[in-house]
Amino acid sequence: MRLLILNGPNLNLTGTREPEIYGNQSFEDYFRMLKEKYAVLALDYFQSNHEGALIDQIHASRNAYDGIIINAGAYSHTSIAIADALKAAKIPTVEVHISNIFGREEFRRNSYISPIAIGVISGLGLDGYNLAVQYFINKK
Amino acid sequence: MRLLILNGPNLNLTGTREPEIYGNQSFEDYFRMLKEKYAVLALDYFQSNHEGALIDQIHASRNAYDGIIINAGAYSHTSIAIADALKAAKIPTVEVHISNIFGREEFRRNSYISPIAIGVISGLGLDGYNLAVQYFINKK
Amino acid sequence: MRLLILNGPNLNLTGTREPEIYGNQSFEDYFRMLKEKYAVLALDYFQSNHEGALIDQIHASRNAYDGIIINAGAYSHTSIAIADALKAAKIPTVEVHISNIFGREEFRRNSYISPIAIGVISGLGLDGYNLAVQYFINKK
Amino acid sequence: MRLLILNGPNLNLTGTREPEIYGNQSFEDYFRMLKEKYAVLALDYFQSNHEGALIDQIHASRNAYDGIIINAGAYSHTSIAIADALKAAKIPTVEVHISNIFGREEFRRNSYISPIAIGVISGLGLDGYNLAVQYFINKK
Amino acid sequence: MRLLILNGPNLNLTGTREPEIYGNQSFEDYFRMLKEKYAVLALDYFQSNHEGALIDQIHASRNAYDGIIINAGAYSHTSIAIADALKAAKIPTVEVHISNIFGREEFRRNSYISPIAIGVISGLGLDGYNLAVQYFINKK
Amino acid sequence: MRLLILNGPNLNLTGTREPEIYGNQSFEDYFRMLKEKYAVLALDYFQSNHEGALIDQIHASRNAYDGIIINAGAYSHTSIAIADALKAAKIPTVEVHISNIFGREEFRRNSYISPIAIGVISGLGLDGYNLAVQYFINKK
Amino acid sequence: MRLLILNGPNLNLTGTREPEIYGNQSFEDYFRMLKEKYAVLALDYFQSNHEGALIDQIHASRNAYDGIIINAGAYSHTSIAIADALKAAKIPTVEVHISNIFGREEFRRNSYISPIAIGVISGLGLDGYNLAVQYFINKK
Amino acid sequence: MRLLILNGPNLNLTGTREPEIYGNQSFEDYFRMLKEKYAVLALDYFQSNHEGALIDQIHASRNAYDGIIINAGAYSHTSIAIADALKAAKIPTVEVHISNIFGREEFRRNSYISPIAIGVISGLGLDGYNLAVQYFINKK
Amino acid sequence: MRLLILNGPNLNLTGTREPEIYGNQSFEDYFRMLKEKYAVLALDYFQSNHEGALIDQIHASRNAYDGIIINAGAYSHTSIAIADALKAAKIPTVEVHISNIFGREEFRRNSYISPIAIGVISGLGLDGYNLAVQYFINKK
Amino acid sequence: MRLLILNGPNLNLTGTREPEIYGNQSFEDYFRMLKEKYAVLALDYFQSNHEGALIDQIHASRNAYDGIIINAGAYSHTSIAIADALKAAKIPTVEVHISNIFGREEFRRNSYISPIAIGVISGLGLDGYNLAVQYFINKK
Amino acid sequence: MRLLILNGPNLNLTGTREPEIYGNQSFEDYFRMLKEKYAVLALDYFQSNHEGALIDQIHASRNAYDGIIINAGAYSHTSIAIADALKAAKIPTVEVHISNIFGREEFRRNSYISPIAIGVISGLGLDGYNLAVQYFINKK
Amino acid sequence: MRLLILNGPNLNLTGTREPEIYGNQSFEDYFRMLKEKYAVLALDYFQSNHEGALIDQIHASRNAYDGIIINAGAYSHTSIAIADALKAAKIPTVEVHISNIFGREEFRRNSYISPIAIGVISGLGLDGYNLAVQYFINKK
Repeated sequence: MRLLILNGPNLNLTGTREPEIYGNQSFEDYFRMLKEKYAVLALDYFQSNHEGALIDQIHASRNAYDGIIINAGAYSHTSIAIADALKAAKIPTVEVHISNIFGREEFRRNSYISPIAIGVISGLGLDGYNLAVQYFINKK
Repeated sequence: MRLLILNGPNLNLTGTREPEIYGNQSFEDYFRMLKEKYAVLALDYFQSNHEGALIDQIHASRNAYDGIIINAGAYSHTSIAIADALKAAKIPTVEVHISNIFGREEFRRNSYISPIAIGVISGLGLDGYNLAVQYFINKK
Repeated sequence: MRLLILNGPNLNLTGTREPEIYGNQSFEDYFRMLKEKYAVLALDYFQSNHEGALIDQIHASRNAYDGIIINAGAYSHTSIAIADALKAAKIPTVEVHISNIFGREEFRRNSYISPIAIGVISGLGLDGYNLAVQYFINKK
Repeated sequence: MRLLILNGPNLNLTGTREPEIYGNQSFEDYFRMLKEKYAVLALDYFQSNHEGALIDQIHASRNAYDGIIINAGAYSHTSIAIADALKAAKIPTVEVHISNIFGREEFRRNSYISPIAIGVISGLGLDGYNLAVQYFINKK
Repeated sequence: MRLLILNGPNLNLTGTREPEIYGNQSFEDYFRMLKEKYAVLALDYFQSNHEGALIDQIHASRNAYDGIIINAGAYSHTSIAIADALKAAKIPTVEVHISNIFGREEFRRNSYISPIAIGVISGLGLDGYNLAVQYFINKK
Repeated sequence: MRLLILNGPNLNLTGTREPEIYGNQSFEDYFRMLKEKYAVLALDYFQSNHEGALIDQIHASRNAYDGIIINAGAYSHTSIAIADALKAAKIPTVEVHISNIFGREEFRRNSYISPIAIGVISGLGLDGYNLAVQYFINKK
Repeated sequence: MRLLILNGPNLNLTGTREPEIYGNQSFEDYFRMLKEKYAVLALDYFQSNHEGALIDQIHASRNAYDGIIINAGAYSHTSIAIADALKAAKIPTVEVHISNIFGREEFRRNSYISPIAIGVISGLGLDGYNLAVQYFINKK
Repeated sequence: MRLLILNGPNLNLTGTREPEIYGNQSFEDYFRMLKEKYAVLALDYFQSNHEGALIDQIHASRNAYDGIIINAGAYSHTSIAIADALKAAKIPTVEVHISNIFGREEFRRNSYISPIAIGVISGLGLDGYNLAVQYFINKK
Repeated sequence: MRLLILNGPNLNLTGTREPEIYGNQSFEDYFRMLKEKYAVLALDYFQSNHEGALIDQIHASRNAYDGIIINAGAYSHTSIAIADALKAAKIPTVEVHISNIFGREEFRRNSYISPIAIGVISGLGLDGYNLAVQYFINKK
Repeated sequence: MRLLILNGPNLNLTGTREPEIYGNQSFEDYFRMLKEKYAVLALDYFQSNHEGALIDQIHASRNAYDGIIINAGAYSHTSIAIADALKAAKIPTVEVHISNIFGREEFRRNSYISPIAIGVISGLGLDGYNLAVQYFINKK
Repeated sequence: MRLLILNGPNLNLTGTREPEIYGNQSFEDYFRMLKEKYAVLALDYFQSNHEGALIDQIHASRNAYDGIIINAGAYSHTSIAIADALKAAKIPTVEVHISNIFGREEFRRNSYISPIAIGVISGLGLDGYNLAVQYFINKK
Repeated sequence: MRLLILNGPNLNLTGTREPEIYGNQSFEDYFRMLKEKYAVLALDYFQSNHEGALIDQIHASRNAYDGIIINAGAYSHTSIAIADALKAAKIPTVEVHISNIFGREEFRRNSYISPIAIGVISGLGLDGYNLAVQYFINKK
């Protein structure tokens, strides 16, 4: 099973940004740990602050991945284009948010990606990515 | 670790209701499987169609459980009282929804419980309960 | 044909409450008259002020009734859970309101039950129940 | 007792339009059946696609009818003028909708006529007209 | 191929009304030019300021036309009844607006006809009618 | 100076409808009195319950009148088409309402005609028409 | 008959402010002309830019005037207190606006005074005051 | 004078829940103190987390109490049924909230009970119950 | 303990205005009674119809009073400035309304003062002032 | 005449994405056909999933093209920046949408580009581009 | 160049009110420093808690000042009258806010003054006044 | 002190776009002038039409600058991602807009950046950048 983790804007700062919330582990380190844990899977990771680059990557993922785990960051709330790309790509997608977007500003409660995803994991920290991988394994 | 799964209205019908969506496994069966899988945990289950009974149960859970996994069903969208009970009980809580509430009617997108929960797992089927248990174990 | 009349909160007061509007006939008396008129039908009646009790009753009605005539009173405007129960029970349902809910406060105009019912009879007094029974007979 | 059935725009197509929903009985045929059933009543029928013609007819009905059964079709949702005409005419009015307007587009949920009618029957098919006639007879 | 151009309220004034915007060609002249250009088509034209007359005409067009090009003028924004008539008539319909309704008052941005039309041409002047005819020819 | 009084739906009932509000003088009688009072003016009167007929009359009034006094009744709140017709006709227009539309239902507070009229007189009874005539005389 | 004209904020600038709209006649001059025209009436005039001063004046007007003609300027849209004062004072009141408040910014369309006034004259220039005086005379 | 204090969901936790806000006195203790202070009154107390139980109690209170002091907790914001029960019971009612509901989340600002109560005391702590009792005594 | 009662616009009319609601006791008389009852307190009273005067008085009250009992009348709903003044003055404040503002027009339900006050007493008549004084005494 | 066709996000997938809707012709093929048909024109084509790249291209198009035919895809609904670029570039622009955006999700009904375009062609499939070219030719 | 600084309600408390935010420099001291810095300018200062007094001052400023620097405090969000006065006075105006009104309560985000001012400086503390003066000097 | 000026989409056109508003000075020229004026500062300038490039630049600016002066152009109103980047970067930020965004379209009034900036300067033309630099100098 091939899975792609897709991270949106500002998530490259994880580990240095507000460490009291996100811990001081960088996403790169976390991803390395995840790859080791799920060595039998083909697990890839792509991050960009560019909405267009995320869309390009989703297009390129057609036929290349069996599942996408996406945390589109702030683009979740503003990008219809990313949601459209996921719908067109027809790859099963689980949406992840590190923090609990339902306990923050009103404008973070809506995600254009949620309705087209299989489901959403929000607020469970970096472990949310791990649980999403679990979900894909369990569902197989 | 003691965990309580708390199910709200109509979730007692799981397995016989719209099986093409929810499968034909009853929640009782699923819970039995879960208990076996996590034999080392003290895992309990309570379901009620009564808002007040859910609140009573949350009150009774103080000091009795280390975590609550709640799927308040339709009460998620209308009950401030259940959310208040959870806030008062101060037990770490993960919210679970079997179906993806973000891809359904507008009035299902808001949950009074979400802002006071640690996080939310929505749309990943019955496996959402399993992943919530995992989360509590991983976090320990 | 087995029909269940399901009355929600405060409808137990019919006859003593605002008699200039509702007349001074109690619902029990009215129901007795209805049972006599439709002696060939199996006509039952259940009232509760408890949202959960109404849901329990709807669940218990599966396979037991061919139709439900529901007046959920104020719960019509606030209870997604009762509407979900009716949708899950898959029993043909007609919604009745004694008073005309469209000529009252703004918050009474919306009923969560209406969209999942076959139809609605509102404002025709106690006769609305009679007409709903008629509808089920005519449709047979 | 003299009763007028007043049908608004597009209801002249009943029977040929979406027969899987409305059946293939034209309203003219249905009305003939209704007249026979209630031979003792003076039962009339008027249909127009013109808002103004419906208002003219309502004005002409003062002192001529004891009750109006109106299905103003799409004008229910947009015509304050028809509602004003009914209020000015002071003839007891029951509003009927063949389909369940509460389960359709948002803009069909509001009817300017509902607040000034005695009551509403919605979603019970052509039988709604019959039940409305029954109501007038029972109330007498 | 038989096509009907249907114009709503105030469009009979085209040519004399605000000529700096609409030019000083009357719609009658424009239509004559169009008929000559598409001599092989059966091209008809109907205008009315009466909502009911437009609905009557749509009803009469069933089986008589292969396509309707409608500019319902101000009724686009207020008439659910015309949209219902078009839906019932099941004739392929293209909506045309001479001016760009998206650059004017807020209340002109919504058209009840748009969702039930194949598509919309707005703001391209009288040429919009010509392009709509082209569309029907190309699609054949 | 030629002035046209244009009355919309239900205003033909003035005098018989809710006489405690409108008095028992018919508009015809009132208009006769007005004509006598302003004998030097060419004062005409047109009433219709048909939106289209009102639009036709406005079109026909171009070059025929120096001013229009319009009470479009309920169409004031729903008809963009009548407002468009007045704007196209370019005849100075004063809007009159017999009752005070600002002290009634919320939906009566908006008039599509008000923004394109010179001004509005509302709530001053039948005298509002007289004052509107005065305004045209004073302005001359 | 004793009448008070009450002008709110910025109306003291009439005549010098935007003369292409309001003309170059000051309100003092206009009022002098009005007093001459209606010499038989006791006609007073009070202007203030202070909301509180307007309220004080309304209180002082009880038993002192038979009618108030109020143009509260921008306070019309923001002052519930002035409307309450007029309601408490129980003096028949006509609201006047020099410009047509319905053709301007959205926030000028609502006036707290309109619902408690007998009626409104808007957009007819300074002549609106004259017509309001006429109304009081005619009604007597 | 017989008075009933009616407490809604989660208020049974008073004293142990967020003591820095509510103090560490349980409501039972507070009530005992209140009963002593007002020994001449027949003062009763009922609490439930069940909406239906509160409604049942209100029904049972007819003819049994001269006044109700209600703190419906979170049900204040969601229960039309409790408000309907109070309206039907026709017992003079004062609404009390321990915390200031107007300084908290937006959804706590609306109470369905407030419009049907005589009045509201909010934010004055447990003393609000005492002041409500005082009110009933003073009014006698 | 020094307490200031601060009354806003139109409250100087209490006693003469709508006596069937407010009784025919003037606030001055009521205040005299209150002063006698609480002779041990330094109880002052200030009323103004001027928003600015109320703000000036609040500023002047810093260090002069231990508590403010404010009924800002209609300014409660429109004045952010008075609420800011109270917040800046840092004097404990109880808001009082004689009538029940929650059972009146929609625009009276919001008070800018409520969120910054300790609490609110609404609808308990003039006795609300007395109860607010009691509250300050009890809290001491 | 030099014309630029500008396509936004996901439109590079046309032909492979949802072929039952869009057909199985790629936009590249369609564009080749278009270029042949309008060989006398200088017709260019640019697509990007990057909002910034589309803006860069619009800037580069100043003085290079006589017209732009833009289908900004999902960016139509979210990008004020693209609309600003078009307004700054001052090149006549026609907006095209392949599907009928007015018959889809609510959030697709608004396009920031529509108000600054000459006009809009929506729902007429790929032929919309052809008709837009026609429009530019006809207008010349 | 003559400039007037106009401060609205509660700004007289600057220096003593919430010093951790505003510092402990009074506005009088700050203004004295400003006058010294810009000795070549005629710099005046006026503060009032009275909306009417601010309007009076603006009127009096016509022909007396070349620019106004206004911080209307809480009146910014509620006073259309002050904005109208500034528009009528036609003196170039820069709006200043000491705190960042965009990071506070929702109701502080709207200022009626902003649209009629040249521009806005918000959140830069007392230095905002200095920068506004600079702007007027630079623009000269 | 190191300061970065960050300009968003379309601001590269300043000087050639709508010169009657923005003048005919390009931002490059203006920036050169600014650098000369503040020669003692390390003043940099970055412009991009790409949302992602702006975010990348903000990330790269951590530890590199003491302040950011951002004019995110149209992205101000739509980009939560840029605001998040600024919050994460923790560099003191002043927001500048050349035109007065409060006097334009409704959708330009909201900026996601404003609440996380120290403050905002809007409408003071290119001088706004200069004043923002001044602010940083004064604050030092």
